[in-house]
Amino acid sequence: MALTGAVRAGTLSPVAVTEAYLERIATRDETVRAWEYLSPGQVLEAARALSARGPQGALAGLPIAVKDVIATHDMPTGYGNVSYAGTRPVCDAPCVVLSRAADGLVLGKSVSTEFAMASPGKTRNPFDPARTPGGSSSGSCAAVGAGMALLGFGTQTAGSVIRPASYCGVVGYKPTHGLINTAEVKVLAQSLDTIGLLTRTVADAALVASVLGRRPDLMPEGTVTGLRIGLFHTAPFDKAGPGTLAALEHAHRALSGAGHRVSVLPVPDWFEHSHLAHHRVMGFEVTSALAFERLSPQVHMTDMTRDFLAAKAGVSAEDYDAALAFRDLHARKLADLMADVDVLLAPAAPDVAPLGLGATGDPVFNTPWTLFRMPAITVPALRWQGLPVGVQVIGARHADRKTLAAAQAIEAALDYGWTAA
Amino acid sequence: MALTGAVRAGTLSPVAVTEAYLERIATRDETVRAWEYLSPGQVLEAARALSARGPQGALAGLPIAVKDVIATHDMPTGYGNVSYAGTRPVCDAPCVVLSRAADGLVLGKSVSTEFAMASPGKTRNPFDPARTPGGSSSGSCAAVGAGMALLGFGTQTAGSVIRPASYCGVVGYKPTHGLINTAEVKVLAQSLDTIGLLTRTVADAALVASVLGRRPDLMPEGTVTGLRIGLFHTAPFDKAGPGTLAALEHAHRALSGAGHRVSVLPVPDWFEHSHLAHHRVMGFEVTSALAFERLSPQVHMTDMTRDFLAAKAGVSAEDYDAALAFRDLHARKLADLMADVDVLLAPAAPDVAPLGLGATGDPVFNTPWTLFRMPAITVPALRWQGLPVGVQVIGARHADRKTLAAAQAIEAALDYGWTAA
Repeated sequence: MALTGAVRAGTLSPVAVTEAYLERIATRDETVRAWEYLSPGQVLEAARALSARGPQGALAGLPIAVKDVIATHDMPTGYGNVSYAGTRPVCDAPCVVLSRAADGLVLGKSVSTEFAMASPGKTRNPFDPARTPGGSSSGSCAAVGAGMALLGFGTQTAGSVIRPASYCGVVGYKPTHGLINTAEVKVLAQSLDTIGLLTRTVADAALVASVLGRRPDLMPEGTVTGLRIGLFHTAPFDKAGPGTLAALEHAHRALSGAGHRVSVLPVPDWFEHSHLAHHRVMGFEVTSALAFERLSPQVHMTDMTRDFLAAKAGVSAEDYDAALAFRDLHARKLADLMADVDVLLAPAAPDVAPLGLGATGDPVFNTPWTLFRMPAITVPALRWQGLPVGVQVIGARHADRKTLAAAQAIEAALDYGWTAA
Repeated sequence: MALTGAVRAGTLSPVAVTEAYLERIATRDETVRAWEYLSPGQVLEAARALSARGPQGALAGLPIAVKDVIATHDMPTGYGNVSYAGTRPVCDAPCVVLSRAADGLVLGKSVSTEFAMASPGKTRNPFDPARTPGGSSSGSCAAVGAGMALLGFGTQTAGSVIRPASYCGVVGYKPTHGLINTAEVKVLAQSLDTIGLLTRTVADAALVASVLGRRPDLMPEGTVTGLRIGLFHTAPFDKAGPGTLAALEHAHRALSGAGHRVSVLPVPDWFEHSHLAHHRVMGFEVTSALAFERLSPQVHMTDMTRDFLAAKAGVSAEDYDAALAFRDLHARKLADLMADVDVLLAPAAPDVAPLGLGATGDPVFNTPWTLFRMPAITVPALRWQGLPVGVQVIGARHADRKTLAAAQAIEAALDYGWTAA
């Protein structure tokens, strides 16, 4: 990464980086509203301390947006909820500690939907303020998309990294479940909750994941040629709108043109049941995990969140067990289906970001991959009527290295031409 | 449970229960030191509020000790560590919320070893104050053993429920991983961390698990006859001392006498490698999860904990991946090995509680079952030289109902004769 290299070489100081990003934020955030908490004085002080020690870490000077459901001991962590606003945890989550230990610079906390579920925060899409940035990692996606941070931390329990990344024109990487430790992140559903990374490039995401996951070998080496890509339409494919169809067509053509082999993989009949299984796994787990929020009179929440939780509370232990059994059985079937391809290529979202700020879009193209705990990466593909649309690259579980390398090759072929919104 | 029935019937008030337990605590805790936080005024106020509403819940009036690594919004949660002492979380963990929603009564917080690892707290064994109560759930086990609570919440990442339960003469139930939601519990290793229950009887443990796990069908119905029990010596069996050997012999004889079929299952060669696999899974995960504690100068900890964490930090991602693969492969082999038995019977601990308060005993007979995420239950078996020793009943993963029913039948056959120490 050019920025971290320059900071390590001493040609760019963390203070200069911070001042530049604060200036960008001053210009853009009145419209985008990506930040839940940002104290220029505090971050400049941290930047001065970092400058003073001559940072040599892998993330030297990297400006980071931390989603508001991830604990920080020196900044409030409010879970996007009014009753938790201003809460100050006693420690930092591992992703925060490890990025700081690698000389990264946390700028502030980015907006989350309420408890990282469906009820939107104040953030607007950086490409069109009349549209949603997506959710739940709304602020981190919008901040990176608008050039207000180079790295955003998000979380995905349904489709909260991959979909908003597509809407905001950024790379979104949801690793294999467990690759980045989720301690000190507000728990929704432990079988599903995954920390994701929002960046400008796949290489940046790989670098950060290698640091946070303590897996140096995640960085792609050289260029992958002759990829075998399985185009997987996902069910129900009739949810895909013109922007997403155009992105897939562009990807198909560009990848074939770049010498990769794209074959269409049929979607098995059972695949559509993944959505119900995801609902049941999330439902049973979140009903316990948010027991305090559901039952304590001291926690206030929007009607949208309360209704969401009420719908999830109907899932029985029997439904839950059946859903886990479905997941285990069909994870093996998916592995068989992928035997002859390196990665799958699928929609990242139904279309460009929808109009309106009252909802964050449909995770229908994301929940199966979250259920199966497989690595998935949003790669920006094109602009459709001025708005970004990404495609989703999906790899086998635990094959994050291969998936990142493939996504990097796909990124090169798609030639999106990243610019800050 | 007699107590909850009497409370529901109105013949016993939560205030009377609380007063009786506070009296017992006043008598015993000066020696046992099981409590990290206990405010008689606060708990009496809660009992009065509970009495006033005519409690009809499944846990009506049940006096509970909550391990200090489990969040409570109205009591401090210090993780057994000096730097966190007095911390007040913003919410209750699900096990606390759900037990209160079922009209249970949290008396206070029980002593944990530091961060639920090896460095002991102040608690002494209720049967002999010169001996350890075991750890890390020291306070909850000692409180139930000494009659200062009817239910204790513990956590097990290595052997922190099963072993101290044996040392303190109580039932310890570590469910299948995930059965009781671990949100808002200090994370050590997410693949292993399990909330366990300390009670006087297996039936009590089943009742509480059915409430907290939202699985009404966990309660055993009727009496199980003709159990097929596999006596599994566990490797390395030469760690078993005279107390444990006597407990296994007593169990073998009593179970055969009660009409159950006990067969000795050979321990496969690979089994001993479970210990290394456990070390690697815990090591890699805890090194990330406790990154703040390891790296922040504001957290102070004992040398014992720092050395423990340093030893774990040497585990590489490669070692970790190999250990998870080992677990998945051998979980299937264990399932095959158990094809013809209902449960396994194994040592719960090397022997009676060892002398001294500087260490909490060896989890060697526990770590494999934690690694494999299988349900395990300590059933008190006999007194050896005046000190309790339990045996461990282990079931197939997710077969908690069957395992509890078997443990209840085994408890009846062993006829330990529970009395408060």
